[in-house]
Amino acid sequence: MKRGKTFIVSGPSGVGKSTVLNALLERRSNVYFSVSATTRDPRPGEEDGVHYHFLDVDTFRSWIVNDEFLEYAEYVGNFYGTPKKYVDAAMNGGKDVILDIEVQGAIQVTSKRPDTVRIFIAPPSWAELERRLTERGTDSQEKIQKRLLRAKVEFQTAHTYDYFVINDTVENAVRELDAIMTAEHCKPRERMEIISGR
Amino acid sequence: MKRGKTFIVSGPSGVGKSTVLNALLERRSNVYFSVSATTRDPRPGEEDGVHYHFLDVDTFRSWIVNDEFLEYAEYVGNFYGTPKKYVDAAMNGGKDVILDIEVQGAIQVTSKRPDTVRIFIAPPSWAELERRLTERGTDSQEKIQKRLLRAKVEFQTAHTYDYFVINDTVENAVRELDAIMTAEHCKPRERMEIISGR
Repeated sequence: MKRGKTFIVSGPSGVGKSTVLNALLERRSNVYFSVSATTRDPRPGEEDGVHYHFLDVDTFRSWIVNDEFLEYAEYVGNFYGTPKKYVDAAMNGGKDVILDIEVQGAIQVTSKRPDTVRIFIAPPSWAELERRLTERGTDSQEKIQKRLLRAKVEFQTAHTYDYFVINDTVENAVRELDAIMTAEHCKPRERMEIISGR
Repeated sequence: MKRGKTFIVSGPSGVGKSTVLNALLERRSNVYFSVSATTRDPRPGEEDGVHYHFLDVDTFRSWIVNDEFLEYAEYVGNFYGTPKKYVDAAMNGGKDVILDIEVQGAIQVTSKRPDTVRIFIAPPSWAELERRLTERGTDSQEKIQKRLLRAKVEFQTAHTYDYFVINDTVENAVRELDAIMTAEHCKPRERMEIISGR
């Protein structure tokens, strides 16, 4: 069976990444959406292994020591990370893996696995991102301005990504993501067995 | 207007490239299929500017001298080449350009224009290529064996291409070509204006 590939999808808060990725999963079968591990407590309705892999701090530390994370970070006193084993199981099973992680995590993953494909999802404009964050209604105006500033900082690294998708409409963004995944499977290194096997 | 990109599509005789490219043109609007220049005489039904740009030898030579070809070659006493001007006009008009050229021509084009994307179309197997060449009914068995040998030689360079499409079915091959063209437009260098313009 042909091994799957891993795709990192980054993008600022409010860009509509979840909507785009959910639509992508409907279009492409054979995709595993990576579930992060965390040391924070489950919130009501969150299931272990579905929303997160919930670990205690000692377990998380031992996974770090044993190099069992593709990337990890601390955020407001809690640890978050991408366990290797679920990613590898999916890839070995022929599935493509999507990692929804931030710029810092993307750097960690690609330094370990340079063949990981990095896709940055950007808003059509900053004004539109501000509008989406405001419309969402979950953040104060102060928090929205902080998110915008953070988005602009992250955006400075967007040119280091392999692909740059603009979420002007969900349909366009999904079409481009889908095309990128198909195209990446057409790279000669992905088809070396066919090329060398003749 | 966003400038178009140039895509080289190479592949052995009999692989079904014309069928795939015609189906691609139906799926993607805004594509210019490059018309070669040649010094050979028109055959019945061939129109100047449609099947070829028919040039006399002196004109062809002057175009070579003035660097007006992206690539050219001599084949059985006649010259064939890809004129720059039609390619550039199409790209400047926002169209993607497809060059249906061979491996040697592809090397010439990419040495002049490294941002050209190279796609190799391969048969699912050599046995299938032989079957297609035989079914076509245009060549003697000797000619078919020559074509097969040539295909195997060309195939040695396939790993230098950017993409490798296997024409198992026309539908699959077209889907992959279409995805490659879409994905290439998502490269950061294609969207620098958006990235830097914020």
